[in-house]
Amino acid sequence: MEKDISQAVIRRMPRYYRYLGELLEEGVERISSNDLSSRMKVTASQIRQDLNNFGGFGQQGYGYNVQFLYDEIGKILGLNQTHNIIVIGAGNLGQAITNYVKFEKFGFLITALFDINPKLKGQMVRDIPIYMMDELEEYCAKNRVDIAALTLPKERADATAKYLVQLGIHAIWNFAHVDLDLDSQVVVENVHLSDSLMQLSYNIVKNSD
Amino acid sequence: MEKDISQAVIRRMPRYYRYLGELLEEGVERISSNDLSSRMKVTASQIRQDLNNFGGFGQQGYGYNVQFLYDEIGKILGLNQTHNIIVIGAGNLGQAITNYVKFEKFGFLITALFDINPKLKGQMVRDIPIYMMDELEEYCAKNRVDIAALTLPKERADATAKYLVQLGIHAIWNFAHVDLDLDSQVVVENVHLSDSLMQLSYNIVKNSD
Repeated sequence: MEKDISQAVIRRMPRYYRYLGELLEEGVERISSNDLSSRMKVTASQIRQDLNNFGGFGQQGYGYNVQFLYDEIGKILGLNQTHNIIVIGAGNLGQAITNYVKFEKFGFLITALFDINPKLKGQMVRDIPIYMMDELEEYCAKNRVDIAALTLPKERADATAKYLVQLGIHAIWNFAHVDLDLDSQVVVENVHLSDSLMQLSYNIVKNSD
Repeated sequence: MEKDISQAVIRRMPRYYRYLGELLEEGVERISSNDLSSRMKVTASQIRQDLNNFGGFGQQGYGYNVQFLYDEIGKILGLNQTHNIIVIGAGNLGQAITNYVKFEKFGFLITALFDINPKLKGQMVRDIPIYMMDELEEYCAKNRVDIAALTLPKERADATAKYLVQLGIHAIWNFAHVDLDLDSQVVVENVHLSDSLMQLSYNIVKNSD
């Protein structure tokens, strides 16, 4: 696989995957880049360029085989393997994410939540247990953990992330409103909800000008 | 204000705002673009370019006045006015967002939730009431609503968004895992959590190659 594919391209891949999944549900077996283009509201040339980063997949005069392209993009995105996720911070957001069953469809399995609030000890979200933070080290020694979702206050996020890395977790899904200062080998994906609201607010102001 | 500022620049503005807010909390009054650069881990030239889109704000040999820059970016982002938000879908995610008090700090006030589940009727999240969807029209006639957050299943998202637009709401914060097909005058900001997880997963696979 090429190493220098821009994050902008990668950011678009889940959207291709989603549209191809919808086409499969509708029983569509093949699609031209023009039809995919008008459906996704991006140019056909952008689609061809994006997919060429991974070797193409299209055939002149045939278009794309939907199932094949769906599977290939799934592999590119690492969805042909399961990922175990633990959620650090079992407050509202942590519980909301844990209840979001749709992630399982793509192979992301939430296996445990952790918190420091003793009232939550032993409680379950769906059938997933909440443990205390002092049980985390033992849990990580006994279970495979691929991703830690950080849904805790920003004040504790960076120290907690560093501790998770010490315990061997190299991928962080960060919801705390702070940039984590971690080793570059650690993969971090941020979901900054406040930033998203501010961008919305900017566009509201711009639109009303 | 310039009209052709790219969304990539806008996407970085909340991060500037966040760092400047932290500097203010630390009592820092002015900062050079080099110091801001090393703190934010972007190049000083990128910072200057980004801010030049809005007219600069820096002074040769002085750097940036932190409070002034913070306030100006706040104005650019529309944070000098309050925004009333209603949440459509009072499930886990809708309730989690409503409980996220920090949005209030930036002028985003959640004023009501709406759902179709009669069990939720009359319940409160913090002190914010849950109404039924058939009360939405009257609510919108009597109250200012600036933004609707969509935290409902994707199957109902597009029709609900169109209904909200009919009721005069022109900004949608969309958490449903689908692209909305709306008039271009409507401002939409998507938070696609599955897409974010897939991007994380891609980077995990790439890192382990």
